[in-house]
Amino acid sequence: MRLTIALGGNAILKPGQNGNAEEQLSNVYESCEQIGKLAAEGYQIVITHGNGPQVGNILLQQNSAKNIPELPLDFCGAQTQGFIGYMIQNSLLNVFEKNNLDLKSTSLVTQVLVDKNDSAFYNPSKPVGPFFDRKHAKKQEEKGEKWIEDSGRGWRKVVPSPQPLKIIEKELINDLIENERVVIAAGGGGIPVIENESNLEGVEAVIDKDRAGCILAQDTNSDFFFILTDVDNVMINYGTEEEKALKEITVSEIAKYLKEGQFGEGSMAPKVESAIKFVKDGGKKAVITSLSNLKAAVAGNAGTIITL
Amino acid sequence: MRLTIALGGNAILKPGQNGNAEEQLSNVYESCEQIGKLAAEGYQIVITHGNGPQVGNILLQQNSAKNIPELPLDFCGAQTQGFIGYMIQNSLLNVFEKNNLDLKSTSLVTQVLVDKNDSAFYNPSKPVGPFFDRKHAKKQEEKGEKWIEDSGRGWRKVVPSPQPLKIIEKELINDLIENERVVIAAGGGGIPVIENESNLEGVEAVIDKDRAGCILAQDTNSDFFFILTDVDNVMINYGTEEEKALKEITVSEIAKYLKEGQFGEGSMAPKVESAIKFVKDGGKKAVITSLSNLKAAVAGNAGTIITL
Repeated sequence: MRLTIALGGNAILKPGQNGNAEEQLSNVYESCEQIGKLAAEGYQIVITHGNGPQVGNILLQQNSAKNIPELPLDFCGAQTQGFIGYMIQNSLLNVFEKNNLDLKSTSLVTQVLVDKNDSAFYNPSKPVGPFFDRKHAKKQEEKGEKWIEDSGRGWRKVVPSPQPLKIIEKELINDLIENERVVIAAGGGGIPVIENESNLEGVEAVIDKDRAGCILAQDTNSDFFFILTDVDNVMINYGTEEEKALKEITVSEIAKYLKEGQFGEGSMAPKVESAIKFVKDGGKKAVITSLSNLKAAVAGNAGTIITL
Repeated sequence: MRLTIALGGNAILKPGQNGNAEEQLSNVYESCEQIGKLAAEGYQIVITHGNGPQVGNILLQQNSAKNIPELPLDFCGAQTQGFIGYMIQNSLLNVFEKNNLDLKSTSLVTQVLVDKNDSAFYNPSKPVGPFFDRKHAKKQEEKGEKWIEDSGRGWRKVVPSPQPLKIIEKELINDLIENERVVIAAGGGGIPVIENESNLEGVEAVIDKDRAGCILAQDTNSDFFFILTDVDNVMINYGTEEEKALKEITVSEIAKYLKEGQFGEGSMAPKVESAIKFVKDGGKKAVITSLSNLKAAVAGNAGTIITL
């Protein structure tokens, strides 16, 4: 049985933490202990992860050092794949060693194909990096960037968030899984690349990590797709008296709630969408839950479990 | 026939360039075109690379953004493995596609084992990161760091440069090479880890990339070990009337020159040392030359070729 697990932001950095190495590594180790329990039961596991706060920090650091050229988003994403991958790979190896499991882990620099004609490229919508004042935003807009006023905290650059089509390194990932390796791939949604004639070219965009996780789950023929986040269940009528946690639910039921706008854009909605896509396209089940529920959710006893 | 190629700094960033993405990617692509020619001839290839200027930039950027925690060197090294690996992996894939080669490339986050009792930990000697004034240096020394005055340009932090012992991911690398993949590994000398009880723990240190390249070449049973740098040959009596380029030379001859102090510490000396170690321990030949000589050097017609 094969699982793809998408680790949410707080598997790496918890609310209120500022992101020093010790905190991040300790959070990652905790996540890996949970994942280790599933590996011990014989599940084949593919892991992906978010990188929002980490890439935000890199962008801010780049902006602060005036004499050093800022690197584009595909490069920054690759940087986070390197160091978050390192934390997960290192933690998993240590967890496996501690539990006498004859397994290895490896993290791969992963490119994800997007369509150069994806409508997202004509409508950049994903805010990235630090907040600036209006003047800075206008100046950057003159260079062809798009900026928006974001949540009353100032102006932020927005970039396209195209749909992922294919994990470029999928054959490799599949080979590795067959060879008793827990693979970490497509971190931060993967490095977005377009096909330009026969060349793969990195682009200034961000792929939603749960959407990329869905493609990763499909490209690796995973039976289950787990989206781990900071809540135990998907909720409907959130914050009202009719608030209700979704448990077992069919694709068509949850699709109805999605259409009603029950789930936050940019937070729960893309998770639900990705879960629906996975099951609709033939996956056995998709589960949205918290890290601490992972083991129970695999057994079918926790989380929001979406099936056909 | 299997080759390990250590790409020198200017395979990625040339003197006088400031390190923007276009320049770096264009240099890397050029290197990959040379490597592609060898791949086309059927050589199995493992690549490693330096990361000095890139990690220097990251340290400077981290230092400039006051409100974001600075990450330790093992994390920064992993960041550079991510983005330099991405550039090489992407360029190689494009070169293979262009030349109709049925090959893939992949870059791996790579940990390299060092001895926690390595004498380097008692004598940090490798300068890293930006220059500061004496006051800053003294303040940091109070926190337990070691700083030195470097080349008259100010004060710099120095970190240990321990000997690499083993590539933690070596089995994986070997499996991949067998499967028609050009592997990029141990970038920047690898992420240094020590064994602490049964845990692998990252440490604040820098492994010399040519020394790590030698271990990588040995751990992958490479026949040849190529160290690419900015000169065509190793020179003796450099800058004097007796200046001479070394061509074919035995381990014992070049070891004599090394002992005489013919080669610059921190530049040519570790390259020569690593080449000697590779051949002494059973490798067929080690070659030190420039990128443009790579193909001729493989055929035995260029570079400094070191054999038993």
